[in-house]
Amino acid sequence: MPDKLGILAGGGPLPRQIVESCRRAGREVFVVAFDGQTDPATLDGDVEHVWTRLGAAGQALKALRKAGCQDLVMAGPVRRPSFGEIRPDFTAARFLGRLGTRALGDDGLLRAVMALLEHEGFRMVGLHEVLPDVLAGAGVLGRHTPDAAAFEDIRRGLAVARALGEQDVGQAVVVQQGLVLGVEAIEGTDRLLARCGGLRRPGPGGVLVKIKKPQQDARADLPTIGERTVEGAQAAGLSGIAISAGGALMVNPEGTIKAADAAHLFLYGVERAGTARNAPDSGAA
Amino acid sequence: MPDKLGILAGGGPLPRQIVESCRRAGREVFVVAFDGQTDPATLDGDVEHVWTRLGAAGQALKALRKAGCQDLVMAGPVRRPSFGEIRPDFTAARFLGRLGTRALGDDGLLRAVMALLEHEGFRMVGLHEVLPDVLAGAGVLGRHTPDAAAFEDIRRGLAVARALGEQDVGQAVVVQQGLVLGVEAIEGTDRLLARCGGLRRPGPGGVLVKIKKPQQDARADLPTIGERTVEGAQAAGLSGIAISAGGALMVNPEGTIKAADAAHLFLYGVERAGTARNAPDSGAA
Repeated sequence: MPDKLGILAGGGPLPRQIVESCRRAGREVFVVAFDGQTDPATLDGDVEHVWTRLGAAGQALKALRKAGCQDLVMAGPVRRPSFGEIRPDFTAARFLGRLGTRALGDDGLLRAVMALLEHEGFRMVGLHEVLPDVLAGAGVLGRHTPDAAAFEDIRRGLAVARALGEQDVGQAVVVQQGLVLGVEAIEGTDRLLARCGGLRRPGPGGVLVKIKKPQQDARADLPTIGERTVEGAQAAGLSGIAISAGGALMVNPEGTIKAADAAHLFLYGVERAGTARNAPDSGAA
Repeated sequence: MPDKLGILAGGGPLPRQIVESCRRAGREVFVVAFDGQTDPATLDGDVEHVWTRLGAAGQALKALRKAGCQDLVMAGPVRRPSFGEIRPDFTAARFLGRLGTRALGDDGLLRAVMALLEHEGFRMVGLHEVLPDVLAGAGVLGRHTPDAAAFEDIRRGLAVARALGEQDVGQAVVVQQGLVLGVEAIEGTDRLLARCGGLRRPGPGGVLVKIKKPQQDARADLPTIGERTVEGAQAAGLSGIAISAGGALMVNPEGTIKAADAAHLFLYGVERAGTARNAPDSGAA
């Protein structure tokens, strides 16, 4: 039996899924819940936990040590605050001081946090290590298959998403007939999809492309889709969703694929090596 | 006296400004107005013109020849239609056939259109050749000056805008305290600013960075700001606007600078070579 697992719980349902998966496996957990970020339902049924602020790094580390955790996992999106909002405690202030005033994207900040935690003696584990099956597979994942026009749009979306990812901005792009309808920054994929519905041109198609940033650590906040993403893509009139095979998470994979099937959307896992049948040109991936 | 000038009129006030500037200089003009794109006020006071569809290239070329135009200028944004909407006539169909199914961004399409027009014997002239003073200058353009934090945000915005521009997507980015709040795709700068107001973090600052794409032809649709941009930036709580010196247009420069001064926003012209005093690191520009 592995050690007690420390869960740094961002928003959404993923942290709760880890809690339940660990319970089924008989593994103990300790949740660090963040004010204004973690869904309180994560803690339902006497889950050992501490509530804290994002800036209270010292308190979080102390609680994790007291709980006897060595393995830590980060799960769920964290709405990134401004430096002004953080109100750092001593540990956080020292950490931020070391970072300096470099303008950091989400991923840069997460990597710095992980380095700090490893420096403090914890072991960061990937979400896929504690929640197998949550990483998206390759190729056609549901009942529907992208057509040639969709593959063109996927290719263009991959090129744009990759350029954005290299700048550590967003992970998602919506493309229709070669036109980039929208690009995600800090607003998140749900709001990106909501505005792209009104920007669509007459005619078929449109895809959401959501991929891992090139430099993104698999233990950091990976791109995630779920049933809500499928609903948003359907409402925007898109024909499907492409995600990184092995580099994106599906919250409730079975339910997500079922929802896509019912909505007549394709779900496609893009491989970097482009080895999937009908895969878009890997040069752009 | 130069030849009669053919004006391919997109939206907004720029085409009208050209008409008026030519009238003052005694130069004749002929306006090609596009359904659903050109502001009808462009044609006020008996301006020689033809109304046409974007897809009716043959009709537009014939009208320009009949009017005796050789010099052509493109001015004002064109809401790019889907291929389905274009309903190309014979000339446009042949042009689109030659383009093939390549997924083109705005700039790629404009460059192809310009190449077609030059191939047909017209001479494409830049907006700055017919509307001097409309290109933004370098450095601090109004009464307010960016502070150190604003220069940091400008630097980050330039890097992101440049990466996007290389993909032929959008021209504008909003950055606050190193966070990229929003990235422009097809929705345009006004809508980008409108959503970024709600995404701002507590605390000061935030800049709009709007620059020319690296490969953008100065005769194509250059990034443009005006009084409406200033209003949008003020409503979004930003501290200023940075644009490409010599590569961005100010609609009504005097009015735009006056509006920025009154709104307590800086207006800053970024030089590629970074030679302006206090200029952000040119490496990112």
